[in-house]
Amino acid sequence: MADYQVPLKDMSFLLYDVFKADQLWQSLPTLAERVDKETAEAILQECAKITEQEIAPLSRNGDEVGVSFKDGKVTTVPGYKQAFDTYVQGGWTSLGGDPEFGGMGMPKMLTAFHEEMLCSADISFSLYPGLTAGAGLSLAKHGSEALKSRYLTRMYAGEWSATMCLTESHAGTDLGMIRTKAIPQDDDSYLVSGTKIFITAGEHDLTDNIVHLVLAKLPDAPAGPRGISLFLVPKFLVNDDETLGEFNNVTCGSIEHKMGIHASATCVMNFDGAKGYLVGELNKGLACMFTMMNFERIGVGIQGLGAAVRSYQNALEYAKDRIQGRSLTGVKSPDAQADSLMVHGDVRRMLLNMKAMNEGSRALSTYIAMQLDIATYGSGEAKQKADHLVALMTPIAKAFFTDLGFESTVAGQQIFGGHGYVREWGQEQLVRDTRISQIYEGTNGVQAMDLMARKVAGSKGELVKVFAEEVQSYIADTSSAQMQEFIQPLASATQDLVQLTDDILSSAKNNPEELGCAANDYLHVFGYTAMAFVWAKMAEVSFAADESSEFHQSKIHTARYFYARLLPRCGSLIASAKAGSETMFDMPENLF
Amino acid sequence: MADYQVPLKDMSFLLYDVFKADQLWQSLPTLAERVDKETAEAILQECAKITEQEIAPLSRNGDEVGVSFKDGKVTTVPGYKQAFDTYVQGGWTSLGGDPEFGGMGMPKMLTAFHEEMLCSADISFSLYPGLTAGAGLSLAKHGSEALKSRYLTRMYAGEWSATMCLTESHAGTDLGMIRTKAIPQDDDSYLVSGTKIFITAGEHDLTDNIVHLVLAKLPDAPAGPRGISLFLVPKFLVNDDETLGEFNNVTCGSIEHKMGIHASATCVMNFDGAKGYLVGELNKGLACMFTMMNFERIGVGIQGLGAAVRSYQNALEYAKDRIQGRSLTGVKSPDAQADSLMVHGDVRRMLLNMKAMNEGSRALSTYIAMQLDIATYGSGEAKQKADHLVALMTPIAKAFFTDLGFESTVAGQQIFGGHGYVREWGQEQLVRDTRISQIYEGTNGVQAMDLMARKVAGSKGELVKVFAEEVQSYIADTSSAQMQEFIQPLASATQDLVQLTDDILSSAKNNPEELGCAANDYLHVFGYTAMAFVWAKMAEVSFAADESSEFHQSKIHTARYFYARLLPRCGSLIASAKAGSETMFDMPENLF
Repeated sequence: MADYQVPLKDMSFLLYDVFKADQLWQSLPTLAERVDKETAEAILQECAKITEQEIAPLSRNGDEVGVSFKDGKVTTVPGYKQAFDTYVQGGWTSLGGDPEFGGMGMPKMLTAFHEEMLCSADISFSLYPGLTAGAGLSLAKHGSEALKSRYLTRMYAGEWSATMCLTESHAGTDLGMIRTKAIPQDDDSYLVSGTKIFITAGEHDLTDNIVHLVLAKLPDAPAGPRGISLFLVPKFLVNDDETLGEFNNVTCGSIEHKMGIHASATCVMNFDGAKGYLVGELNKGLACMFTMMNFERIGVGIQGLGAAVRSYQNALEYAKDRIQGRSLTGVKSPDAQADSLMVHGDVRRMLLNMKAMNEGSRALSTYIAMQLDIATYGSGEAKQKADHLVALMTPIAKAFFTDLGFESTVAGQQIFGGHGYVREWGQEQLVRDTRISQIYEGTNGVQAMDLMARKVAGSKGELVKVFAEEVQSYIADTSSAQMQEFIQPLASATQDLVQLTDDILSSAKNNPEELGCAANDYLHVFGYTAMAFVWAKMAEVSFAADESSEFHQSKIHTARYFYARLLPRCGSLIASAKAGSETMFDMPENLF
Repeated sequence: MADYQVPLKDMSFLLYDVFKADQLWQSLPTLAERVDKETAEAILQECAKITEQEIAPLSRNGDEVGVSFKDGKVTTVPGYKQAFDTYVQGGWTSLGGDPEFGGMGMPKMLTAFHEEMLCSADISFSLYPGLTAGAGLSLAKHGSEALKSRYLTRMYAGEWSATMCLTESHAGTDLGMIRTKAIPQDDDSYLVSGTKIFITAGEHDLTDNIVHLVLAKLPDAPAGPRGISLFLVPKFLVNDDETLGEFNNVTCGSIEHKMGIHASATCVMNFDGAKGYLVGELNKGLACMFTMMNFERIGVGIQGLGAAVRSYQNALEYAKDRIQGRSLTGVKSPDAQADSLMVHGDVRRMLLNMKAMNEGSRALSTYIAMQLDIATYGSGEAKQKADHLVALMTPIAKAFFTDLGFESTVAGQQIFGGHGYVREWGQEQLVRDTRISQIYEGTNGVQAMDLMARKVAGSKGELVKVFAEEVQSYIADTSSAQMQEFIQPLASATQDLVQLTDDILSSAKNNPEELGCAANDYLHVFGYTAMAFVWAKMAEVSFAADESSEFHQSKIHTARYFYARLLPRCGSLIASAKAGSETMFDMPENLF
């Protein structure tokens, strides 16, 4: 496997040349105090060092050894504890945290790159700090001051980790059915009892304490999702002097044996009358949990990108080194027994698919991260527009990036031929590790319905207009002759998306099933169209650069490839989405 | 995991109602003596019994335990030896073999179903007899009478197994570079020396002897593929009295640790001056090996189908049982806490994708098997046409069925949500086991080039015309009003395929790279179009059946789904194929 190399140049290109992050930060008072280009560059370079040198080398062995479970204890794989300590000492657990409680308060545009690097290095490792960061967001927004000063500070400091305890064996997507109970006590605390499954980092040996955010219901709570509350339940109670107190009856019953992310502990967690503290309001637990979702779902999307980047780097190295067969247009390496794989059109197709999808995903995730930062730190109309774009683009980021990420890991494996199926090369691990990103944090089908039903139909199409106007305004402003090769198909794709939106909303008026039947295709049409938008922006900046710059020439070539070979996928997706629900719902269940 | 249930009804439907196999067999004198409907039905039912009851139950544990290697010995997983013995006693190793040497000589239309059942039950198990059957074909066609009576009889009898030893670490697709040497001896034998990798069933404990078919070069052989010869190299030499003689210096150096098919031994094989016997003519080894390829490549295609069938059966059972969320059109199961997954459009989409692809693949593979039987047992124009269709459709069967099979296993896993990622349910094993079918026996990229360059360009498009005329003649003959919903899009798809063929061949005249750049998209366009053809045939037969037949109603619904949602994939593929080679080859290698 090739050594991981962080694409720092592309990250800087996106931040400063394409999205003018430095100007944005200066314009937002809170961020202006915290970050500038110099700080950002230093952060990215340090992050590259630790992920390339300390974390990436652990991944292959971590997959082979796997996390282990014995007598209720989870032991992480060799090297994780040391790497985690180094990671904590570097301050990385506080990167995105609220400064009032010791966080660095860095914008999402930076933390997104940090997440990509971690996931390229080792998705399993990334999940230990990843869940803590997510839980931190929810706690920062909804927790009491007392909870925050006691728990959040230690989470940011990397002393304690955190989890999200949602799923029960019978209740995954449908959290309204959860059975975990919380019984109110006289001291304003609750006793929480129930069993949660699929709890990432539910138990491990990296930190002294683990802070569980648990969804549960009071005995008299309303039925369904409106009766869910959120509780903070520590593994060990905390004494008034801030030292660790007694064990809180939170135990790990077992860990799952999974297809991939073998070094990540996926735990069955038993809460047996464990003391918990309410976070946010009673029966508003789902809303509190969803605070972290916009951040986390983009983060999971970035997992797909992270693994895909690794897949491309490995496959490119292999394709250049491996000699096999000859070019269709004559021998290219006469001194060798065969030409390299790079001469074969189908190998180039797979490499360029990966390159165009990866750089497109990174650009689009940076664009969405920018909207999140404006939504968080901006004001007025700009903030409102950013709020809309974040709501719209979050499910796309999660599902589209992970679907493309999976495609990229499979393509990278394919380039290795039989060697890609053998474990030692690491390509097949990328496929297995990435596959979960399409499933957890809301399956990609759930994301598609979040987009189609909640965001698009829920806003009567208004959110789509916000996006379409943004693109159309860019198109109107971009009149240079050399950009027309991109601008015209971009205009056409945007028009097709708007038309498709209208068509689906119109047919859904008569039959709501149309939404569910079109959702997956629609999400992908939206994804490719949004990616065409950011590819046009990247091409525009690259045209303006020095012609001798290989980096920018590569961007222009890749943009052309994206428009020629990937954007046309929309045609079939639109035809399928427009085919309607009849062929899916006319068939009775017994005929399946 | 659901118990495997062989789709016997669909197999009979295809054999007798759609493709009139019984009439075909009667019309071909050799087959008329060997098989009729009654025999065929008995064979399929017996095969269903052994695969459902004896083999399928071994798969899950086989994946967990894996084949083991110690001191040069390979130990297969628990239950394999007993199941293999039962399989041999049932006569299954002789099913497709030449009757002159003890085979049953059954047509491919039947053996293809046997292969599907084996692969649905357990791909790993299927590979032990599978390679023997393939090697048997090559030996039957090219081996001397002496070799056949000594080795082929024992292979058909299931006493000995066989392998195909092609790949070396530096030579996979490009076999012209192999280094394994064969030194002629005075007694007409050769001493073979070299190391082969990725040898399926190269060593194991199921049979007393293993017959290796090995590609090697004589010291003075011409360079490249024209200097390759084929040798039969037994693990143990055979004495003149037919008893096993001395060990022949063929050793297993190690086995691969792989993504899937854990119960299949993938061996590094060392030949250290092992005695071998020439099969066929000197320096014509590749041609001898390719004899088995048309059969084997369809067989590998069927592996994809086999796993996909299992994926559908499991996912359907889960989708019916699992309750989660409510229907968009109101509560469907008021007495339950939630509706089943079957109410969700996106779940139906995934199930119907699987169902339409699986039944379409089975129908198309039956059609291709029929052409193979006509090519093998027919004569005159019919044979010639069948030869052409087999040459054309073989790479499509291999690549298209495995790509769709992989898509189906991934879709089935997705329906299980998080439970699909956990090993105990078996869904993720299907994904891992199927993935190899896109890689071995010539990667799917190699198949695409075989189709595009060798078959289509090589025949100047004539082979495509044979297929197109077959479809157009069917279209002309099918004038009923109710069939027009299929006939019109089928005509249009066929016309698009012909046009695409012309366009690519025309642009390839100026630039041969066009072939490599279009190959993958072209193969898939061809696959969907051919599948539309067999779906129309299935719909036609089903329209003619009793309206109360659920089986036939299901066919009509699924045919409509295929035409509405899967055939439109051609649109994007054609756009991509026509985009040309510029965006793929203008970019210099250093810009990747």
